[in-house]
Amino acid sequence: MAAGVRQQMVDTAAVLLAKHGLQATSFAEVLKASGAPRGSLYHHFPGGKDELVLAALGAAGDRAATVLDGLAGQPADLVAERFIGLWRAVLTRSDLTAGCSLLAVTVAADSEPLLDRAGEIFAAWTERVGELLAAGGVPAEQSTALATSLIAACEGGVVLARAARSMAPYEAVAGVQLALVRSAMSG
Amino acid sequence: MAAGVRQQMVDTAAVLLAKHGLQATSFAEVLKASGAPRGSLYHHFPGGKDELVLAALGAAGDRAATVLDGLAGQPADLVAERFIGLWRAVLTRSDLTAGCSLLAVTVAADSEPLLDRAGEIFAAWTERVGELLAAGGVPAEQSTALATSLIAACEGGVVLARAARSMAPYEAVAGVQLALVRSAMSG
Repeated sequence: MAAGVRQQMVDTAAVLLAKHGLQATSFAEVLKASGAPRGSLYHHFPGGKDELVLAALGAAGDRAATVLDGLAGQPADLVAERFIGLWRAVLTRSDLTAGCSLLAVTVAADSEPLLDRAGEIFAAWTERVGELLAAGGVPAEQSTALATSLIAACEGGVVLARAARSMAPYEAVAGVQLALVRSAMSG
Repeated sequence: MAAGVRQQMVDTAAVLLAKHGLQATSFAEVLKASGAPRGSLYHHFPGGKDELVLAALGAAGDRAATVLDGLAGQPADLVAERFIGLWRAVLTRSDLTAGCSLLAVTVAADSEPLLDRAGEIFAAWTERVGELLAAGGVPAEQSTALATSLIAACEGGVVLARAARSMAPYEAVAGVQLALVRSAMSG
């Protein structure tokens, strides 16, 4: 039960980060949105808001990592498609009001540990996507750069789509990145 | 002199947005960082903080537009290089502590006019970069998608570099995007 309350607060914080950014993800907002009792915040996160945000970043990182782990042995273009699909789902399910919590924290981080954690998770995604692309048919010497490009383009594409309130920029970016991975597979 | 004070406040707000995000860009912080007298804020921005942020977004949009206007008639790969260079300069001059004020506003916007303005400026950049790429040798039917990809990848690459506190992710993204534009020119 206690673990359930904690998880609920972490999930709520992750959604607030993805939708409204770091400063809007306050203890007060998390309490309001999760319905958790006030005392539970300090019980589960004695380190304060940063501890909650670190847990929310970890949860977001794990969700993507779980999807990536399920793609072992798949062709590189399917790996790219699934990664692109992760972010497409975030946009469409939220009616273009949500994005990446890691990005939101990076551009508003007011503490080193938060920036460090976002950097670690981005690096872990890049390494894992790079390995999957290489195993799936992209030449090894191109796999890290293509993984970095895929992640950066998806992150930026999500922001362009939110600002445009249209999926068009995201789909344009997705098409270019997918063609790039396919071209590297046959090159 | 009054125009000078106003411009100084707009520039200060743009820097705060690029470094610390929307919520950290308060009137109090702008006063502190610009040294402007308190009354001048309400004099120049009777619409409050949103009016100041809209002006800062406009200034950021205009800076990029001025650079793009200077690239008319240039080859597409040079256009891409210069756009990539704009963001490289933001990262290196700030020791990787600053990024794009439009992106910062998009992911933390708490008002429709701010999101609208960010969307308009991103759309204007995309249109202008697309025209320049097409005029510079990229097939017209690919130019909008490549412009969108370039802008999204640079935006995302800036975030990855800030989180990593290293230029490596940005340079990886830059290399891939430049190769993509060159390949479209010869394709």
